[in-house]
Amino acid sequence: MPENKEIEIMRSVYDKNDEVASQINSSFTRNKIFAINVMGAPGAGKTSTIIEIIKRLEDVASFVIEGDIEADFDTKLLQSLGVKAIQINTGGACHLDSPLIGKAAAELSLKNGVLFIENIGNLVCPAEFQIGEHVKMLISTVTEGSDKPYKYPLAFEKADIIILNKCDLLPYLDFDENFFMKGVRALNKTAPLIKVSCRTKEGFEEAVKWIRDKIK
Amino acid sequence: MPENKEIEIMRSVYDKNDEVASQINSSFTRNKIFAINVMGAPGAGKTSTIIEIIKRLEDVASFVIEGDIEADFDTKLLQSLGVKAIQINTGGACHLDSPLIGKAAAELSLKNGVLFIENIGNLVCPAEFQIGEHVKMLISTVTEGSDKPYKYPLAFEKADIIILNKCDLLPYLDFDENFFMKGVRALNKTAPLIKVSCRTKEGFEEAVKWIRDKIK
Repeated sequence: MPENKEIEIMRSVYDKNDEVASQINSSFTRNKIFAINVMGAPGAGKTSTIIEIIKRLEDVASFVIEGDIEADFDTKLLQSLGVKAIQINTGGACHLDSPLIGKAAAELSLKNGVLFIENIGNLVCPAEFQIGEHVKMLISTVTEGSDKPYKYPLAFEKADIIILNKCDLLPYLDFDENFFMKGVRALNKTAPLIKVSCRTKEGFEEAVKWIRDKIK
Repeated sequence: MPENKEIEIMRSVYDKNDEVASQINSSFTRNKIFAINVMGAPGAGKTSTIIEIIKRLEDVASFVIEGDIEADFDTKLLQSLGVKAIQINTGGACHLDSPLIGKAAAELSLKNGVLFIENIGNLVCPAEFQIGEHVKMLISTVTEGSDKPYKYPLAFEKADIIILNKCDLLPYLDFDENFFMKGVRALNKTAPLIKVSCRTKEGFEEAVKWIRDKIK
């Protein structure tokens, strides 16, 4: 199989994805849905962050599309809290794509609110695929170490907002905050970087304010 | 582009990879190299674990192939400790494949020892690709949470040895060890699971013994 054939097919996959993503984005905008693509490594606290933000957006309708390879713990947790949530299991695929989101969105009958789309736990592939979002939220953590922006640049470069989670553990770690920030700002000059802890539930006000400003 | 064409091309990518992996594996075996494919999420402590093991294998020649999307901190760190290490930067690709390993291995002139191949930080894609290894070592961490085997089953299923890192942080977390172990054992009955801390440098003796038994 010649390599340019593979490149051509990959290009077709990206093009098809982006075309559908653009249609989904228009539909969200038409229905006054502000869509946030939530990305982060496995165990970064994506669901926990979404929950803390939703709790503080009590006057706004919130919806969640939960992406996982397998299992549906997070969707069940969200539903038990009264959040309108739907599960996508990719069965192996390492990122969400826009056709998957199109189908899930149709089932949630979205209107007037904020949609959190929790991507697969992966600091690499999700950043390459548009899925109809208005903004990308990256959840990074102090336990992953301060070199992450240097090693996984695309996710940091493309983020519109960066949440730095698990800050309650800072006293027990050797996290070099200056090195981390230098790496982030070399890639991304504008995204706010907000320190939080899902365990102590501190720091979320700024993230909530950022979202409220966007949906004004 | 018809979808079966995409499937056909993906199959060809896997087949080509596995064919090269099998050749590399034979070459490693012929040269008395025991190759370990080290997998884990971003920031799981893959390099730190490799370093702690190599320190305790002082009578065995150790080599490292370092996989990263970008940057070469870990290779420089390893080289500063006197370890023969070489960097692969995938420039975006989310896993190592066997042609990349073939090229890197040729540069290290490997003979009589242990080769650690540190894969890209990703709990999804690396588990799908053989890269010439004899065994797969999965580095999981208590900070990622106890639901990881349920959400990322393939990596846990395919591991020959599982290292559970960052155990020094257990007092500050809500990690449910029973739930984690139940998830691991539902997928994998045989891989030893070894609790360590790269920060306190505790727990590595069992992992070192496991490797010594394999290369006897």
